[in-house]
Amino acid sequence: MIELQDIQAAAARLKEIIVETPLLVSSELDRIVGGQILLKPECLQRTGSFKIRGAYNMMCQMTPEQAACGVVAWSSGNHAQGVAAAGGLLGIKTTIVMPEDAPKAKIANTRRLGGEVVLYDRYNDDREAIARRIATESGAVLVPSYEERKIIEGQGTAGLEIMQQSAAMGVTPDQVIICCGGGGLSAGCATAIRAISPRTDVYLVEPVEFDDTLRSMQSGERVRNARSARSICDALQTETPGKMTFAINQKLASGVLTVTDEEVAEAMRFVFRHLKLVVEPGGAVALAAVLAKKIVVKDTVTAVVLSGGNVDAELFGSIQSGA
Amino acid sequence: MIELQDIQAAAARLKEIIVETPLLVSSELDRIVGGQILLKPECLQRTGSFKIRGAYNMMCQMTPEQAACGVVAWSSGNHAQGVAAAGGLLGIKTTIVMPEDAPKAKIANTRRLGGEVVLYDRYNDDREAIARRIATESGAVLVPSYEERKIIEGQGTAGLEIMQQSAAMGVTPDQVIICCGGGGLSAGCATAIRAISPRTDVYLVEPVEFDDTLRSMQSGERVRNARSARSICDALQTETPGKMTFAINQKLASGVLTVTDEEVAEAMRFVFRHLKLVVEPGGAVALAAVLAKKIVVKDTVTAVVLSGGNVDAELFGSIQSGA
Repeated sequence: MIELQDIQAAAARLKEIIVETPLLVSSELDRIVGGQILLKPECLQRTGSFKIRGAYNMMCQMTPEQAACGVVAWSSGNHAQGVAAAGGLLGIKTTIVMPEDAPKAKIANTRRLGGEVVLYDRYNDDREAIARRIATESGAVLVPSYEERKIIEGQGTAGLEIMQQSAAMGVTPDQVIICCGGGGLSAGCATAIRAISPRTDVYLVEPVEFDDTLRSMQSGERVRNARSARSICDALQTETPGKMTFAINQKLASGVLTVTDEEVAEAMRFVFRHLKLVVEPGGAVALAAVLAKKIVVKDTVTAVVLSGGNVDAELFGSIQSGA
Repeated sequence: MIELQDIQAAAARLKEIIVETPLLVSSELDRIVGGQILLKPECLQRTGSFKIRGAYNMMCQMTPEQAACGVVAWSSGNHAQGVAAAGGLLGIKTTIVMPEDAPKAKIANTRRLGGEVVLYDRYNDDREAIARRIATESGAVLVPSYEERKIIEGQGTAGLEIMQQSAAMGVTPDQVIICCGGGGLSAGCATAIRAISPRTDVYLVEPVEFDDTLRSMQSGERVRNARSARSICDALQTETPGKMTFAINQKLASGVLTVTDEEVAEAMRFVFRHLKLVVEPGGAVALAAVLAKKIVVKDTVTAVVLSGGNVDAELFGSIQSGA
């Protein structure tokens, strides 16, 4: 099991590398929901999402021999950029397998950060098989997007910061709301949060057609999403929870909420109008759950993670004009 | 003259009211420009711009008799929202004279914050005359948007924070770049900045057709912009510098830069793509000057104020898709 001290050690490794994103408050948001909301805008993180936390934490611990062979990863885009940026900082060659319908900005940024991008068909190809073949042929180390303890520990530093920053503000969150794709961010954050404050609830949020973690929690074993599942949240389209991440989330999370594409779009419009932040669909699900009243936040202190902001201008524009 | 201690006193009045906006860094921005840029995102400020700093600082010092009569102000939108929000917090009735072509979001937000909005024609009516008539008829106190020392002192708290926050990061800015409309923000910030660090240069930035402060500095006396002047920056369309603000800026600023609408649009696209912040045209001029190489930032520490983020979704979308 991952302990608080593992996440603290990851935070020490990341200290000079990542942005300590601020914990933002909005009196207008608080007035609307009737509670105190603390926003963790990981869209302001280096590479535009939290993903560099885990990628760098794993890759900086590779041996020189491993580093010399490079790394390979698969990702819809945010992990891709995190891995590419970490590779650039550490001098490690990175190859990223990305779906051909990933947001153009994510593909372009991954290349700009020095990553070699291999595209695949999200609905017909097996990205894992492609990545494993590259790893076998080149000797590259696979950097998983969530099912790896060093990745989970790195992502958990966001949760550690939430607790440290809220303590500096003189409050302890009653609950923390976090998006859930493969479950790495939520598992890492939940570990840090509940070790520091056992009374703080952690809630996960999934797109309604990608509710694999919700159904897995209900059935007690990991289930898969339908191949036909669709969501505006490209960052959260995982097939099934990770074994390790699910074990942690099952133990530490108080519940799983789901949101529709329209609720996500409404949250993105709210963030544009009132918070002046650019949040991508997958990055907006936690706030969407709050605004759509999927959880009671009245008279509580609730921390909400805005996990990323890598969205194409065209999609962003069409969502903003869709109100 | 306004002294540092006046701005410190304003900061104490504003402590529980405003957001201490963070000083953000972006390794990607730094890499592109070859220097260290510290961004002060006042778009994240309550009401979406710095304007509540000055409005609240003035209005909280009104006598109960004055407060009972309410206040009146004219504004293209950001000062309007600052005054309306301050009025809501202090229980003071606010009437705001706004141009009928102001961004819809600014008009709607001013009303939502409790302000009574009176619209006028920007190119034919005299907003000052309309506001003075309201003041005469109702006994309301006029809250100027810049030509008033309590307003300047309030806006200066943003500059004070820049110096405090950069000091906490272990650096002192070599230069600070600030937008200039009427000159209240720049005059207040320059006062704080240069009192704390006399070696730090302050540069002002204007839209190219609204270069009244630049030409006033060159000629040594306050000049007006042409009635025909146009700019995408609705927040910076002032006719002429204030007498008090010009005297301060003339003494403390090292120079004035100008930017075109296209340079502003490019900065807004950069901010969307790389910084994940929503900045309005007037809020982007200081960064536009940096990105368009109007000033040398290589190998220096440069603080840049992003002064506001109140932009309509339609304009924002068309700028983003205009690359």
